[in-house]
Amino acid sequence: MSNDILLRNLRPFGADATDMLIRDGRIARIAPGLPAEDGLPEEDCGGAILLPGLVEAHTHLDKTLWGMGWREHQAGPALRDKIDTERRLRREWDIEPHRQSMRQALLSLGHGSTAIRSHVDVDTEVGLAGIEGVAATRAALADQVDIEIVAFPQSGLMSRPGTLELLDEALRGPADVVGGLDPCGIDADPKGQLDAVFALAEKHGKPIDIHLHEPGELGAFSMEMIIERTRAHAMQGKVTISHAFCLGMPDRDRARALVGELADAQIHVATVATPSRPVPLAEDLRAAGVVLCAGSDGIRDTWGPYGNGDMLERAMLLGLRNNLRADRDVEHALWCCSWGGARVMELDGYGIEEGCRADLVLVEAESVTHAVAARPARKLVLKAGRVVARDGRALREAP
Amino acid sequence: MSNDILLRNLRPFGADATDMLIRDGRIARIAPGLPAEDGLPEEDCGGAILLPGLVEAHTHLDKTLWGMGWREHQAGPALRDKIDTERRLRREWDIEPHRQSMRQALLSLGHGSTAIRSHVDVDTEVGLAGIEGVAATRAALADQVDIEIVAFPQSGLMSRPGTLELLDEALRGPADVVGGLDPCGIDADPKGQLDAVFALAEKHGKPIDIHLHEPGELGAFSMEMIIERTRAHAMQGKVTISHAFCLGMPDRDRARALVGELADAQIHVATVATPSRPVPLAEDLRAAGVVLCAGSDGIRDTWGPYGNGDMLERAMLLGLRNNLRADRDVEHALWCCSWGGARVMELDGYGIEEGCRADLVLVEAESVTHAVAARPARKLVLKAGRVVARDGRALREAP
Repeated sequence: MSNDILLRNLRPFGADATDMLIRDGRIARIAPGLPAEDGLPEEDCGGAILLPGLVEAHTHLDKTLWGMGWREHQAGPALRDKIDTERRLRREWDIEPHRQSMRQALLSLGHGSTAIRSHVDVDTEVGLAGIEGVAATRAALADQVDIEIVAFPQSGLMSRPGTLELLDEALRGPADVVGGLDPCGIDADPKGQLDAVFALAEKHGKPIDIHLHEPGELGAFSMEMIIERTRAHAMQGKVTISHAFCLGMPDRDRARALVGELADAQIHVATVATPSRPVPLAEDLRAAGVVLCAGSDGIRDTWGPYGNGDMLERAMLLGLRNNLRADRDVEHALWCCSWGGARVMELDGYGIEEGCRADLVLVEAESVTHAVAARPARKLVLKAGRVVARDGRALREAP
Repeated sequence: MSNDILLRNLRPFGADATDMLIRDGRIARIAPGLPAEDGLPEEDCGGAILLPGLVEAHTHLDKTLWGMGWREHQAGPALRDKIDTERRLRREWDIEPHRQSMRQALLSLGHGSTAIRSHVDVDTEVGLAGIEGVAATRAALADQVDIEIVAFPQSGLMSRPGTLELLDEALRGPADVVGGLDPCGIDADPKGQLDAVFALAEKHGKPIDIHLHEPGELGAFSMEMIIERTRAHAMQGKVTISHAFCLGMPDRDRARALVGELADAQIHVATVATPSRPVPLAEDLRAAGVVLCAGSDGIRDTWGPYGNGDMLERAMLLGLRNNLRADRDVEHALWCCSWGGARVMELDGYGIEEGCRADLVLVEAESVTHAVAARPARKLVLKAGRVVARDGRALREAP
């Protein structure tokens, strides 16, 4: 009975108020005036809007400095500066992956994210310590939040011998997804890196999620190689490209043609809605039928001071970045931060209909767009029907 | 004595903890361990960071729908759609300027803005009703927040006969600043509009603030006409260009040359840090010595659903838009949202040194950058030494 609960007076995605019965962690019935039952706990939701559990589809749980005290930013502007500074500070500051990922996961949970895809660094210095730390967090929070681990060669794959073997080991172990990173910009070996990534995916039967910061034609070149391999390995629906800044190139016709190819190969895109960089346009992807999901990227880490893990705020940033103003368009931004992420993570039974898993968020707002614009503290968060957060905070204490 | 207070244990701009004595609404002394005095109220600030009162340097107090219940967005994407839809809904929905500007001003005050520059619509339909409504708010909140009124021809100046006379009347009355708007894009008469605006400014001895959304070379053309007239009328230091999207043009050399001309003519720039449009780069302006201030623009109005009047959040958006990560750069973003606005509004005695007006904000954070990234509720806001807001809310109730 512990995952059974009767939620009263909630408004699914802003619709009329109703009640919701949850049994065995799933939504059993949605109807107004459901009868009380002996021993069945009830919660009055006060007319709050019900959303499905939000999905943090691109972040780095192992890197956050959350709870470690404020530290001055040290990295220079280049991508390489950030990568090298991070490796140094990881040692100097003891950014311990298990403790830090616990902190960030519980922070996100307080904001209503019930599923997280985290890239986790694998390199010849840290080895699998990051993967193991996040895996320990996943085990500790198994009844609170779904965590998917991407084995991520942040410091390079082909350019740092030994990393490929570590990725292979991570994928035999706790890692769920094969990561990659700027095959031209970081590794200067696009064929080498992408062949290796797709070979690992085939060997382990696991999906792929590749960071692609490369802008303009360079990014388009790498993207075309990813598309080609996705088809050759019959991995349609199993590949995500994160950032995909090249899709924000000024040549909109070229970008739309690439989006068409992504749609055809059923490749997903993950975005942070970075305001300072060209980004994939939500409207183009939606029109073509490409699934767009969203994430916080790094939260308060050696890369930068921003971020709080609030996916309603990310929906707002996605709306601002894409100039979405009409309510239906802002609702699509929220779709990316929920259903979009669920599609990419292939979450089973995701949604707010009868039969779905009861991963739910309640937020006091007049409409869905209002919730995105105002981002009020989440009133209640449930994971498989169990209350895991209230008033913006996870019930479980972070270490 | 009512504006005398002893603030204990505060950290000016994140420096070491100290005390601050305020007498007659000004900062009289800053030193640790100041002696208590009979009858002098004290406030323990608990080590909070002290900032000068934030400055909302570009908004539209008369337009917000705050407190009117959520209303679905209706306007189409073009600037003209937004202007025409707004005029229609102003009538249909009774967007009453005094009530609405009271609501927004107190919202902003709760977030620590002690000075606001508001553009207020003047057109042949609304006449001076908007100006009068905001002027009534200014009078009602005279001891809470400084409000500067820009007489703003939102629906066009030359293209809507009768508007010029209304602007003239507004400037004889409560308006402080002459407004303008896209002299090409809206009026299709750049010479006519700009000559009229500068003539009004000269006649009334008042500064100018012109909305310039025009992108690329069109905006550069209008900007050059503004620069030329600023010099001809000897209005250096008295002219602000809001938005200035043309400075975000891809041709960075051309944009920097324009910035150089702005610096030479001592013209200021106001930005919203719009994530979906090219914007002036904070770094370019800073390097050239052009004052950049920032604002929320419209807050939850017929133009769009976003905004909350929080200038710490605006500093964050400015940081994200300009890719500012180092602490000193994020601090500059906050400078734009405080000192920058104060320069543009020519606020007397602004700052957090002895002798300055005690317009102050206290926020619990570990550092200034932390305050920008996390945007905690403002602990305390003082206007001329008087406590006007606590814990994120103005003490005075909004209508």
